[in-house]
Amino acid sequence: MEQAAYERMKGFFSPRRIAVVGASAKNQWFGNLIKYARHYGAAGQFIPVNPRATEVAGVRAVASVGDLPAGEIDFAVIMVKSEAVLRTVEELLHKGTRNILLISSGFAEMGEEGTVKQKQLQHFCRENDILLMGPNCLGFMNFSDRANVFSGGSVEGELIAGPIGLVGQSGASSEMIASKLLKKSLGISLYTATGNEAVITAEDCMDYLVNDSRTRVITAFMEGFRNIERMKDIARQAAIRQIPIIVLKVGRSERGIQAARSHTGALAGNDAAMDGFFRQHGIIRVESIEELVETASVFSHCRLPRGGRLGICTLSGGLCGLYADLCSRCGIELPRLADETIASLKAVLPDFAQPDNPLDVTGSGFLQGMGEILKILLQDKNLDMIAALSFAPAGEGDEMMFAFNETFFPLAREADKPVVALSFREMTDYARRYYEKNGMYYIEHPEDSFKAISHLINYAKFQRSFSDSAARSGAEASGARL
Amino acid sequence: MEQAAYERMKGFFSPRRIAVVGASAKNQWFGNLIKYARHYGAAGQFIPVNPRATEVAGVRAVASVGDLPAGEIDFAVIMVKSEAVLRTVEELLHKGTRNILLISSGFAEMGEEGTVKQKQLQHFCRENDILLMGPNCLGFMNFSDRANVFSGGSVEGELIAGPIGLVGQSGASSEMIASKLLKKSLGISLYTATGNEAVITAEDCMDYLVNDSRTRVITAFMEGFRNIERMKDIARQAAIRQIPIIVLKVGRSERGIQAARSHTGALAGNDAAMDGFFRQHGIIRVESIEELVETASVFSHCRLPRGGRLGICTLSGGLCGLYADLCSRCGIELPRLADETIASLKAVLPDFAQPDNPLDVTGSGFLQGMGEILKILLQDKNLDMIAALSFAPAGEGDEMMFAFNETFFPLAREADKPVVALSFREMTDYARRYYEKNGMYYIEHPEDSFKAISHLINYAKFQRSFSDSAARSGAEASGARL
Repeated sequence: MEQAAYERMKGFFSPRRIAVVGASAKNQWFGNLIKYARHYGAAGQFIPVNPRATEVAGVRAVASVGDLPAGEIDFAVIMVKSEAVLRTVEELLHKGTRNILLISSGFAEMGEEGTVKQKQLQHFCRENDILLMGPNCLGFMNFSDRANVFSGGSVEGELIAGPIGLVGQSGASSEMIASKLLKKSLGISLYTATGNEAVITAEDCMDYLVNDSRTRVITAFMEGFRNIERMKDIARQAAIRQIPIIVLKVGRSERGIQAARSHTGALAGNDAAMDGFFRQHGIIRVESIEELVETASVFSHCRLPRGGRLGICTLSGGLCGLYADLCSRCGIELPRLADETIASLKAVLPDFAQPDNPLDVTGSGFLQGMGEILKILLQDKNLDMIAALSFAPAGEGDEMMFAFNETFFPLAREADKPVVALSFREMTDYARRYYEKNGMYYIEHPEDSFKAISHLINYAKFQRSFSDSAARSGAEASGARL
Repeated sequence: MEQAAYERMKGFFSPRRIAVVGASAKNQWFGNLIKYARHYGAAGQFIPVNPRATEVAGVRAVASVGDLPAGEIDFAVIMVKSEAVLRTVEELLHKGTRNILLISSGFAEMGEEGTVKQKQLQHFCRENDILLMGPNCLGFMNFSDRANVFSGGSVEGELIAGPIGLVGQSGASSEMIASKLLKKSLGISLYTATGNEAVITAEDCMDYLVNDSRTRVITAFMEGFRNIERMKDIARQAAIRQIPIIVLKVGRSERGIQAARSHTGALAGNDAAMDGFFRQHGIIRVESIEELVETASVFSHCRLPRGGRLGICTLSGGLCGLYADLCSRCGIELPRLADETIASLKAVLPDFAQPDNPLDVTGSGFLQGMGEILKILLQDKNLDMIAALSFAPAGEGDEMMFAFNETFFPLAREADKPVVALSFREMTDYARRYYEKNGMYYIEHPEDSFKAISHLINYAKFQRSFSDSAARSGAEASGARL
């Protein structure tokens, strides 16, 4: 992305004074805008435009776009009927407003007539250098710069700024993703719900996130790509910067393709070809919202492992069998422990323990904590990554759990191999915050988590071959712009 | 199961006066026994036996088995070292105690020497008509009869009696299952953790549960079956009574088989043959604890559908695509809606809605509630089961959510097709209790839930062919004993 284009997008995502044309108490949109903006103490930046109201949701309104203060409005939200949209955009242009969020539906998702309307709009925006997000979309939450222009109502949880970028072509689906990230106390840099993408596309947003220094992991809910060549370039830039792109792409099934088509008018494309494209370009494809969230979390917390061999440590033989099967299903290698490892473990575990991988430390083998055990496992040359037994605390009073976890957390944080926490107790909101505060990835739903870990392993492999080929072609230089 | 054997087991699971040989403050076992028994106000039934203590955890102890009151002790828990176990069993037999829970480890899970010890014990018990659970196990929680003899410490949540039976060969794994069932406010009839199964096997417990009138769904965490012929008979009796058996069987992978072997000494068997066995006998095989819990939940709440065609109703095009892909992956058919259904839906949904399956009711299409929409879908001859849009309430104050759900819950409960609730909001403990109170199965983690729904559909199909063949062979009569 050119520097100028990046700056233009950055301005778009950090508006100062916002007109909301069609703001009304009849629907929740304006109320939601205010609610999410108020989180940053910024609700005063909105000016509702409504010919039949002097105020909307307690905010003073003006009657028409013409009544807006001249030269002050750097952003407009449009929520009028689709028939009135183009005229409104023209009026805003007269006022000098070239950044627009178009929430209204009734465009390409509505068949031929709507598609014509959307093309006219697209043409007008391009001719007049107007950046427009939408139509048929929710807007964005810019956690990094504390600027939300978001009309959805379903993002739940504390709004925490952090390293994860999120791009959603579907509003409700991406709101679910945002809520689940926040529930895990994971921070978001920028979340955009792009809808029909008449002008700003998901690719534009991902390109922006690759260049945005606050974003270290990119996630996306996609129904279809608009520009595959562009996406290749974005993936390449992301790979150079070691920013993983995690994509949930619907349209694997016939019914799924059809649903995507009638939703935002995106073409879902050939799914097998899509798989190949993702694999070739190091884009991580996930199958569910839960898997996406876990994958984003594991990438946010873990360095890339040097290989794909995992060591698992738990306290029950049954769980050893369960995790072994699960890893086999996810394609994760569980190597045998080195002979020295087994000997060292025998010295610290009870007599009846039989060190293996997965390692059952037994019901009494963890009483001295995990420090010694983890130290031994970290030294094993057969292992590239460790899932270590941990206890999720239920709340403040759970002193024994804190004490246990402290026996290995410091070591885990310093280790040059990634270490994740494996608890068999029920996860609580308290425990989620606790692990996050301690900088630890934790396994909450093993199926999703081991899939996420396999993505980490595969991405590390991709990165190794990518940097080899990049070194050969001397391509790093071209990627060092930002 | 013969009536006498059933009565014997029933007595075993409802002890009145319990000696705990080897009870000590050095480990948590006795404390845990007390804790879980106290839930039913029954902690006074335990008598610790310990030569070096006059009381354990506040309960008065006796020095030896010989000091126990004669003729009063109908049950004993043994937690002494493995070397002293057989002698203790002999002493208890002299006192007339023939029901024993053996918690100690150090038997078949420990290799050859331990296996010999376990065989001696097994032989002695069989010769002397002693029912023994264990060794290397946690015991049981009999929710139906309010009698817990359980030495584990990790079952969390409110202990609710209900229709789900649980048999675990692994302690920690089955404790996780029990905790997750209780977290969803699902009630348990009997939970047994059977360990090495020197005498009482998982098959015995499942046979008991098939005959226990309180159990409507059986779940099991298995490392290996002891008696496949017996299991066939149990499956047949369960099928006659329409009690689904849901099994998580570890040992799909080489590492998993090995883990199972070293854990409880069970032979995992050939996994492909196991799959065939399960399929043939209508036993439902699941791959994870979470899938097991969801499957138990869906069976507890839903009647069997007449066919496998699902209708899905949500409020977002993106989610339609996601669920369509997911159903395709789980083998669930999403048929086209009948023409009359589409016409009727057009009359109640906004103009821009395009009725299809999955059905996107659109962001405004649900404002009148789901009553009319569900009524239309229920009448569609193409559909056998419905997943209906619902909103999970966050807490008491969520009036709008209650009002919305009430527009279709009564209809859902009366319908002759199963209806489940599909919410896209974050699930809360409050919402879990709310759905349970309303008798509704709810989708919390779509991947697990749709797998569970596919099990319901497949089991219904099994039942149809089973009752056909049963009708032909006149086999029902033999199953009508209880």
